[in-house]
Amino acid sequence: MEVLEIAKEVKKASRNINLASSEKKNLVLLKLKENMSNRCEEILKENAKDIENAKKMGLSESLIERLSLNINKIKAIEKSIDEVICLKDPIGEVVEGCILKSGLNIQKIRVPLGVVGIIYESRPNVTVDAFMLCIKSGNAVILRGGKEAVNTNRFFVELMRDALKKAGLDPFVVGFIDCTRRESCLEIMKLNGYLDVLIPRGGKGLIKTVVENATVPVIETGTGNCHIYVDEFADFDMAIKIVNNAKTSRVSVCNAAESLLVHEKIAEKFLPVLKKEFDKKNVELFGCEKTLKILPDIKKATEEDFYCEYLDYKMSVKIVLDVEEAIAHILKYSSKHSEAIVTNNYFVAEHFLECVDSSAVYVNASTRFTDGFEFGLGAEIGISTQKLHSRGPMGLKDLTTTKFKIRGNGQIRE
Amino acid sequence: MEVLEIAKEVKKASRNINLASSEKKNLVLLKLKENMSNRCEEILKENAKDIENAKKMGLSESLIERLSLNINKIKAIEKSIDEVICLKDPIGEVVEGCILKSGLNIQKIRVPLGVVGIIYESRPNVTVDAFMLCIKSGNAVILRGGKEAVNTNRFFVELMRDALKKAGLDPFVVGFIDCTRRESCLEIMKLNGYLDVLIPRGGKGLIKTVVENATVPVIETGTGNCHIYVDEFADFDMAIKIVNNAKTSRVSVCNAAESLLVHEKIAEKFLPVLKKEFDKKNVELFGCEKTLKILPDIKKATEEDFYCEYLDYKMSVKIVLDVEEAIAHILKYSSKHSEAIVTNNYFVAEHFLECVDSSAVYVNASTRFTDGFEFGLGAEIGISTQKLHSRGPMGLKDLTTTKFKIRGNGQIRE
Repeated sequence: MEVLEIAKEVKKASRNINLASSEKKNLVLLKLKENMSNRCEEILKENAKDIENAKKMGLSESLIERLSLNINKIKAIEKSIDEVICLKDPIGEVVEGCILKSGLNIQKIRVPLGVVGIIYESRPNVTVDAFMLCIKSGNAVILRGGKEAVNTNRFFVELMRDALKKAGLDPFVVGFIDCTRRESCLEIMKLNGYLDVLIPRGGKGLIKTVVENATVPVIETGTGNCHIYVDEFADFDMAIKIVNNAKTSRVSVCNAAESLLVHEKIAEKFLPVLKKEFDKKNVELFGCEKTLKILPDIKKATEEDFYCEYLDYKMSVKIVLDVEEAIAHILKYSSKHSEAIVTNNYFVAEHFLECVDSSAVYVNASTRFTDGFEFGLGAEIGISTQKLHSRGPMGLKDLTTTKFKIRGNGQIRE
Repeated sequence: MEVLEIAKEVKKASRNINLASSEKKNLVLLKLKENMSNRCEEILKENAKDIENAKKMGLSESLIERLSLNINKIKAIEKSIDEVICLKDPIGEVVEGCILKSGLNIQKIRVPLGVVGIIYESRPNVTVDAFMLCIKSGNAVILRGGKEAVNTNRFFVELMRDALKKAGLDPFVVGFIDCTRRESCLEIMKLNGYLDVLIPRGGKGLIKTVVENATVPVIETGTGNCHIYVDEFADFDMAIKIVNNAKTSRVSVCNAAESLLVHEKIAEKFLPVLKKEFDKKNVELFGCEKTLKILPDIKKATEEDFYCEYLDYKMSVKIVLDVEEAIAHILKYSSKHSEAIVTNNYFVAEHFLECVDSSAVYVNASTRFTDGFEFGLGAEIGISTQKLHSRGPMGLKDLTTTKFKIRGNGQIRE
């Protein structure tokens, strides 16, 4: 089936889920969980095909690791379905309301977006994450995962359609785009009239392609050039702990720190201690001129280093005059994802919180907390780095819009 | 100055207004109002140049009327500035907040978008509307109005910059794109990294060009193929009054009704009465086959008629079996702006409210109420017909986003 035909089918089916009750939506999720549990072996068989193909194609071990499922991972997915079932249904909430001067009774009501499109890479759990968040928020969904996971994803969609049918809903509430055709991605980006939003999840290249080519509304996600500023009034031990956690606890994720700013008054004491800590984990530092005077063995940071999201055991370092220079640097170089300050000074902390223009700004905590689950959203469909519609980790509410219901008794406008 | 240079200047100045207090923002608006009042004659002189050029170019009278200012119109603009000053500043609102499991204190805070771009046609009052709503919501703004109003707009921007200076702010908080170069429009649409949102206000052609070409986030506005469904349980007099108001009170606006659906059980009685009323105003009807049997003198509606936003004394008419057919027709043909039902039946009314997927859905009232001022927003920057970010009339809140402020005491993520 062609992309446009699939989109038409999903659009047709979408009213089915848009108007479904909480009970019905939860039933779909429950049935999916049962299907996953009952047909676990088949899932692993399909996944094994993908892994075999990946090995044949010579994919890296870390990519194969992300692609691979096992009993424990499937159990974890089942648990996450339970968690989403427990979340409050956002649909139907009266966001605002009043009686207008004209006597009209107006209510702004939370409703589903309609049809959500998601283009993502080869992590099969994202397939289930996307489906369950869309269903719970009353949306139909068009999935387009990476080609490496095609067998696993296709089988997951079979289980989802079966769950929809068992709940008495149209199985075409979920659309699956066969990712073997590369151009299908571009076709999805132009599905105006069929897609209410397109969310790309993946690397910089994918996001850039979508932003530049899509004519449907898009939510940009994920790029994280996150900063930590260690202020002159920082607690040293806390600063070491936070920088270490933000940089090294998981280097491949968007909320990992990539750049360190240090107040000049403490740099001479702080940097050698940090360096010693980082040497244990082979973290490579790239420093500004002033940093090089303190740490002569490290490489010089170029302008590109300060813009770079390494996603690796690497970090750029700059010594700054004060919090103002730290803020100015962040405004210039950051991707506006997450930034943190370590300080014991109240005024400096509040000033940093106010002036840094990023989706999440921290005082005395690691940037690694920027995450839907950590923020109490239950799960996330992505982390928005744009300002329109949603900013930061996106949960159920971010998959909704509003409509005005207006009740009158014959009002006309003069 | 080139578009990109202007955008850079505005971006640089934007933090100035993004962080300004309510008092300072209101002071800018007050100073603008004083400037308009004190320099009213100069405004009219600049406007006279535009009118003269428009006449030379042979523009239609209605276009010249939209372009023209006079003392009363300027007084009305001054009054609208006062109204915006009185509106509550949306910035700083704590939208949500809690203590997370990790002990982090998280708050979701309302903040300005940053820099807002507006491309619009030749109504000089839009220049002031856009400026005052952006300033009050803490945003810098890049204005690109129609070339016919260039002298008036340029002078308005002079008054705005003077007001910004008087309030101690950077005059480049407002950017003005000289609209004499046609390609400047396309350049604005690609200002990624400088514009946080672009709002096109104008005709279908403009909106379509922006949606298809912009790589910056866009809010689609304005197209209104609005429907009124007269149900079998409608009060006849009320229905006539509402249809008449929605179609004829102002035909050129997006909330005017363009299509009428009538329940088959009452069509034979209702349509001739409506026709008589419409004949007085020369409203031309385009009917479905069934309608033609009742009103043999009118033209047959084509498929295009049902999709058409006439913005004229024209209306398509279709007789439907019941509310279900009415809803299905609206879902297919509507631009999802505003729709109304006239009925005395509670269940039919509630069903229509629930199932129609448009930004504003009315029971027993005219679609003409869909408007920022009528909805109590004070003024509007446009009417969104998309679902992302904002839907329906957009006021101050729609020019904001949120950021998370997170206060910790050394938390790291395991």
